[in-house]
Amino acid sequence: MAEEHTIQVELASERKPKPNEDGLGFGRHFTDHMFIMDYTEGKGWHDPRIVPYQPLSLDPSCMIFHYGQSVFEGLKAYRTEDDRILLFRPTQNFQRLNRSNDRMCIPAVDEDLALEALKQLVAVDKEWVPSAEGTSLYIRPFIISTEPFLGVAPAHNYKFIIIMSPVGSYYAEGIKPVKILVENKFVRAVAGGTGEAKTGGNYASSLKAQEVADEKKYSQVLWLDGVEKKYIEEVGSMNVFFKINGEIVTPALNGSILDGITRKSTIEMLKHWGMKVTERRVSMEEIYEASQSGQLEESFGTGTAAVISPIGEFLWEDRKIVVNNGEIGSTAKKLYDTITGIQRGAEPDPFNWVVEVEEQSVPVK
Amino acid sequence: MAEEHTIQVELASERKPKPNEDGLGFGRHFTDHMFIMDYTEGKGWHDPRIVPYQPLSLDPSCMIFHYGQSVFEGLKAYRTEDDRILLFRPTQNFQRLNRSNDRMCIPAVDEDLALEALKQLVAVDKEWVPSAEGTSLYIRPFIISTEPFLGVAPAHNYKFIIIMSPVGSYYAEGIKPVKILVENKFVRAVAGGTGEAKTGGNYASSLKAQEVADEKKYSQVLWLDGVEKKYIEEVGSMNVFFKINGEIVTPALNGSILDGITRKSTIEMLKHWGMKVTERRVSMEEIYEASQSGQLEESFGTGTAAVISPIGEFLWEDRKIVVNNGEIGSTAKKLYDTITGIQRGAEPDPFNWVVEVEEQSVPVK
Ligand SMILES: Cc1ncc(COP(=O)(O)O)c(C=O)c1O
Ligand SMILES: Cc1ncc(COP(=O)(O)O)c(C=O)c1O
Repeated sequence: MAEEHTIQVELASERKPKPNEDGLGFGRHFTDHMFIMDYTEGKGWHDPRIVPYQPLSLDPSCMIFHYGQSVFEGLKAYRTEDDRILLFRPTQNFQRLNRSNDRMCIPAVDEDLALEALKQLVAVDKEWVPSAEGTSLYIRPFIISTEPFLGVAPAHNYKFIIIMSPVGSYYAEGIKPVKILVENKFVRAVAGGTGEAKTGGNYASSLKAQEVADEKKYSQVLWLDGVEKKYIEEVGSMNVFFKINGEIVTPALNGSILDGITRKSTIEMLKHWGMKVTERRVSMEEIYEASQSGQLEESFGTGTAAVISPIGEFLWEDRKIVVNNGEIGSTAKKLYDTITGIQRGAEPDPFNWVVEVEEQSVPVK
Repeated sequence: MAEEHTIQVELASERKPKPNEDGLGFGRHFTDHMFIMDYTEGKGWHDPRIVPYQPLSLDPSCMIFHYGQSVFEGLKAYRTEDDRILLFRPTQNFQRLNRSNDRMCIPAVDEDLALEALKQLVAVDKEWVPSAEGTSLYIRPFIISTEPFLGVAPAHNYKFIIIMSPVGSYYAEGIKPVKILVENKFVRAVAGGTGEAKTGGNYASSLKAQEVADEKKYSQVLWLDGVEKKYIEEVGSMNVFFKINGEIVTPALNGSILDGITRKSTIEMLKHWGMKVTERRVSMEEIYEASQSGQLEESFGTGTAAVISPIGEFLWEDRKIVVNNGEIGSTAKKLYDTITGIQRGAEPDPFNWVVEVEEQSVPVK
C-alpha cells in the first residue's frame, strides 16, 4: 500500500459508556471511532484516518445538502461464542459500493484499502461488538459530495466515512412472519433510473409509500416495476423469494432492483443444497394464482438487517394472499439458521464467506 | 405572527469582500448571512433566525447523509436601475417547497414566515445584490433531515436554511441557442416517483446522463418519460416549449415533470399576448415530424437560471433536428426581454409578479 495510504489512527481520549445490550434497537448508538478519507479532484482519495467519532463541519452550500450525490453500504460484524469477531462478505459490500459510485458519478474507492480500514476500525472498537443472542455491530460505510457549489454536476470533493452502531436482535420476540402491502401507486425505481445503486434518493422516495403501509398496519411495501406495475421488484429494504411447487423463484436483477448480498448468499446456499432456484421475472398475478391453486408454499425477504424475514401475508389491492398459514416455512427456517450460524461462526462456512478481524489489525498506539 | 416566530437576527461582526461582478459565475460565492429554522417532532418549526453565514455541524449519522430526505428551491433577487430590490414570484417557490415537502414526508413550513425570513435576509445582505447587466442574487432555500438515526423512516428533526449567492449573467456572451441531447437510456423520473418534487435524488440521478451529453458536446439532456421513452418531459433543469405552426406546445404536468415557475409565467404571458398555448403530451416523434415538414418554428427552455434558453438543435439517436437555423426565435426573444424586464423593474408588471424588498424589512440592530 502506498505511503499516502497508510491509515493514521487518532484514538479517543475518553470512551463512551456502552449501552445495555437488551435495549440496543437499531442505529441509535455509535461507537467511539470512525474512519474518514477525503477525495480532492486531481489528488484522488487521500488521508485515510481513524479518528474519534465526531460531528462533520460542512459549508451549507455543500452539494450533499442540495443534489443528493451520495452512496452507502450496510454490513455487520458478529461476535462468536469463542470471542472472535467476524465480518460477513465485506468485499461484496465494497464491490457494490463501487458499482453505486459508478452510477452516481462518484470516484471509485480502493476496495482493499476500504477493507483494511474497516478491519482496523472494528479492531479499535472491538469492545462495541455486542455478544447477546441476535445482536451485532452494524457498519455503515458512506460517501457524500462535499464541494461547496450550487451547480448540478458531479462534485470535485467527497468524504468516505465509516461509522458503526451496536444493534439489537431483529427477532427479539422470535421470528414472526411479516405482512407486506403491495404498492400500486408509488414507484421506487425504474429501468434507466438508480434502483440498482445504494443511494439516498431511492430511500427518500420510498418514505411516502411506507407511511401508507404503516397506517394500514403492514410492515413494509412490495415494489412493482415502474413501467407496467405488474412485475415484482423487491420489498422495502429486502429482496424477495417465493417457493412455488418446490421450486425457489426470485426476481432477476434488472437494473432497478438492489443486488442484495443476502440474496446472493441465499441463492448460493439453496443451490448448494441441491434445490432448484430460478431468477426471472415474477408477476404479482402469478403469485396470486399460485396461492389460489395451493402451490405457493413460502415467501421470505433477504437483507442484512433481518437476514431472512418470512412473509406471512401480502395485500394486493383488495386481494389478501396468506402464505403458509402465516407461519415460517421450512426453507426460510433452514436458511436463517444456516446463514446466521455461519455469520456467528457456529456453522461450517463452505464458501469462505466470513472474514475474521484479527488481533494484529489493532494499530499500536 | 406568534412570539416564537419572531426572527432573531445576529449580524456578522465582519463583512466579507464582495467578488468582482465580472467573474461571479454561479453558486461559488455566498453572502454574509443565512437564515436557519429548526424542526423538532412535537415542537414543530422553531427558532427562526438570521445568523452569520457559517458551517453546519452535523453528526455523521444524520439522515441527510444516508437517505437523502431533502428538498430545495431556487429563485432570484434583482437590482433595478433605480436601486430597488425585487424578488420574482417568491410565494410560488414556498408553495412548491411545501408540495415537495409533502411528497418527501417533510413537515410543511409556514409560507408567510418563510417569505418574511427571505425578505429580511435579502435586506440584511442587500449590498450583495449585484447590479451589472444580467447579474442577480441567487437564493437557495432548502430543508435537510438532521436526526442522528440510521433507520429508513421520515426524520423527527430538520433544518430549513436559506443561503444566497451573487451570480453572473447567464448570457455573458449574448443569447446563444443551446444544443440538446435526447436521452434514450437513463430516466430522470417516472409516474409514481419523485419527479414533481424538487429533491436532491432527482438531480443525483441525472448526473450520469449529463456526463454523456458533456462528452458529446451537448449542453443538456432532454428527458423522455420513463415508461414508454416516447414522450417529452423536460430538459436538464428547464421546462421545454415548442412553437409548431404558430401554436405554442409544452408537455402537460403529469407528476414526473417539475412544475416550473418560469414555465407557468411563460404560459401566462403568452396567453396574455393572445397566443394559443397547449399543455399536452408531446412525443419526440411529433417534434421530429414537425421539423421534417417545416412546421417546427421554435423551441426553448424555461427556468430560473437562464429564464428563457433558446434551443437550436436536438440530437435524437442519429437524427439531428435543427430548429430555426440554430437561431433564437422571435417568441423566445420577446419572452426573454419581457420577463427579464419585469424582473428588473424595467417593464410593466401586469400580473404583479414582483415583490419588492422594502427598506423597513431591515431589522434594527
Ligand atoms: C432496497 C434494498 N433491497 C435489498 C437489500 C438487501 O441487501 P443486502 O442483502 O445486501 O443487505 C437492501 C439492503 O440492505 C436494500 O436497501
Ligand atoms: C428539473 C427542473 N425542471 C425545471 C426547472 C425550472 O423551474 P423554475 O422555472 O421554477 O426555475 C428546474 C429548476 O429550476 C428544474 O430543476
